[in-house]
Amino acid sequence: MASSESDSPTRSPQLRKDVITNRWVIFSPARAKRPSDFKSKSPANPNPNPNNHQCPFCIGHEHQCAPEIFRLPPHDPDWKIRALDGVGFHDVVIESPVHSVQLGDLSPLEIGQVILAYKIRIQQIASCESIKYVQVFKNHGASAGASMSHSHSQMLALPIVPPAVSTRVESMKEYFNQTGKCGICEVNGQDLLVDASTHFLSVVPYAATFPFEIWIIPRDHSPHFHEINDEKALDLGGLLKLMLRKLSLQLDNPPFNLMIQTSPLQINVSDTSHSHWFLQIVPQLTGVGGFEIGSGCYINFVFPEDAAKVLREVNVPE
Amino acid sequence: MASSESDSPTRSPQLRKDVITNRWVIFSPARAKRPSDFKSKSPANPNPNPNNHQCPFCIGHEHQCAPEIFRLPPHDPDWKIRALDGVGFHDVVIESPVHSVQLGDLSPLEIGQVILAYKIRIQQIASCESIKYVQVFKNHGASAGASMSHSHSQMLALPIVPPAVSTRVESMKEYFNQTGKCGICEVNGQDLLVDASTHFLSVVPYAATFPFEIWIIPRDHSPHFHEINDEKALDLGGLLKLMLRKLSLQLDNPPFNLMIQTSPLQINVSDTSHSHWFLQIVPQLTGVGGFEIGSGCYINFVFPEDAAKVLREVNVPE
Repeated sequence: MASSESDSPTRSPQLRKDVITNRWVIFSPARAKRPSDFKSKSPANPNPNPNNHQCPFCIGHEHQCAPEIFRLPPHDPDWKIRALDGVGFHDVVIESPVHSVQLGDLSPLEIGQVILAYKIRIQQIASCESIKYVQVFKNHGASAGASMSHSHSQMLALPIVPPAVSTRVESMKEYFNQTGKCGICEVNGQDLLVDASTHFLSVVPYAATFPFEIWIIPRDHSPHFHEINDEKALDLGGLLKLMLRKLSLQLDNPPFNLMIQTSPLQINVSDTSHSHWFLQIVPQLTGVGGFEIGSGCYINFVFPEDAAKVLREVNVPE
Repeated sequence: MASSESDSPTRSPQLRKDVITNRWVIFSPARAKRPSDFKSKSPANPNPNPNNHQCPFCIGHEHQCAPEIFRLPPHDPDWKIRALDGVGFHDVVIESPVHSVQLGDLSPLEIGQVILAYKIRIQQIASCESIKYVQVFKNHGASAGASMSHSHSQMLALPIVPPAVSTRVESMKEYFNQTGKCGICEVNGQDLLVDASTHFLSVVPYAATFPFEIWIIPRDHSPHFHEINDEKALDLGGLLKLMLRKLSLQLDNPPFNLMIQTSPLQINVSDTSHSHWFLQIVPQLTGVGGFEIGSGCYINFVFPEDAAKVLREVNVPE
């Protein structure tokens, strides 16, 4: 199908480097569909059941799970969130007792409570000196790596600062040394903005690695995610819900990954000025191929400005 | 199902760093199946047709394609391999005129000719001073990123040395400075060896990023892939065919990526002592999730020694 000029102005490919992640991305509209044509090929959760007798994460199946670390509300048989102990410091956070409920279906308050559950657990883990970093992540949909369809997140406590984190910290330090500013505080371009709340901005990053990638950034400079307070967690819950709803409506319930990009637990005081946590959402629309594995470069077929415009205009029903 | 002690001895998770790629990998047998249980969930090419009237890569459909750069044999209407011009220096190499034939179905000589087609094209591109690196790659199967089922490879000429390549070059330099040896020449561990030919070894790397990842390494120290001669290309064709057949039999025709990991085109003479090209094959069995995107660390559920043993023992019919 021919795309009209007004929808898809002619653009040259561009090579952009993200100053935060220090990652090169090729923007290649030549092979692109129009941004509005993107849909998920594999809906994340094709056949959700309200109850699933096979699922150990459902309410009433607690005995089939690994030991519980805590539940919210505490000691309540009618729990809302459970944190389970995996192997070592590999934890699972069950976000809802009901099998068919996904993270974006929860209320802003409930999503805020999931965020606070991450915080509580990181604070517990942080007391262990051998742990250098906690990676919080969520895989939604089989092709995004989820092995269980019941909505859950995971936390992996690592005895090293992982390479993507040290690269990010170094890259932000270099930006700070050159400009005197935090690279994340500087993110405010109107054409990349999707939405905003009292305490957070949601943007498509300037050199987004993946089509329709979104970052949710605290407006105030803050190195560590686990310093978030109750008010900000609730505010973040609302903005995260809105972003998940927009992605689901625009891209047909895509598989996605959600990551909290925070700072190493033991950070030098001198590094706090250029360390700023954010939440990253990556819909899995294209998959990673041989070019990406071989070169470490990524090709993105949707310009960030176009993705931001499409997402801004998605109308989410109340 | 319980796995027997002899098949799956108890192992602790291990964190390994690959000195070549400078990449951390977590080996986590706790969540692993036995190595012999791994199968592809999505066969790469479920419904191959000998002819496909929709496919522009099939013989007789040459007019539907981008301009041809060269064909082998030259000027022959009954061609065996065609190289097409993509956008800029993005080339496509059609490996066979027949729709249903995959790379591993070709004879060692025919695969050798595909390898020589890569070489010819890199030598052409190398004369352009603005090009710093040529990434040769092949995506087989939709979930490995292939958009066309007709067997083909791709080459992307880049105006930068991509990050994974500069990291690899730096990492091998550091190894050389510490040991006085080339890290690739040192790869010879018997328990990681899959097979060998006159000029090449095939191994599972010590810190394989992905389950059943294979590297094919020239026995003689050689920085650049495109220095390969006809005899070595034929020899490589035979070993590559054997590896593709073993992966297909063991893992049920998995989607896979194949990458040529070579050196930057304009390499300093001082860097030739620790630069050594190799061919990398990655079956796509698990997908990349939020942990990998967030941390840049990879989790591999199959120990390299176990993968190498399984692959050594796959019996390939003549």
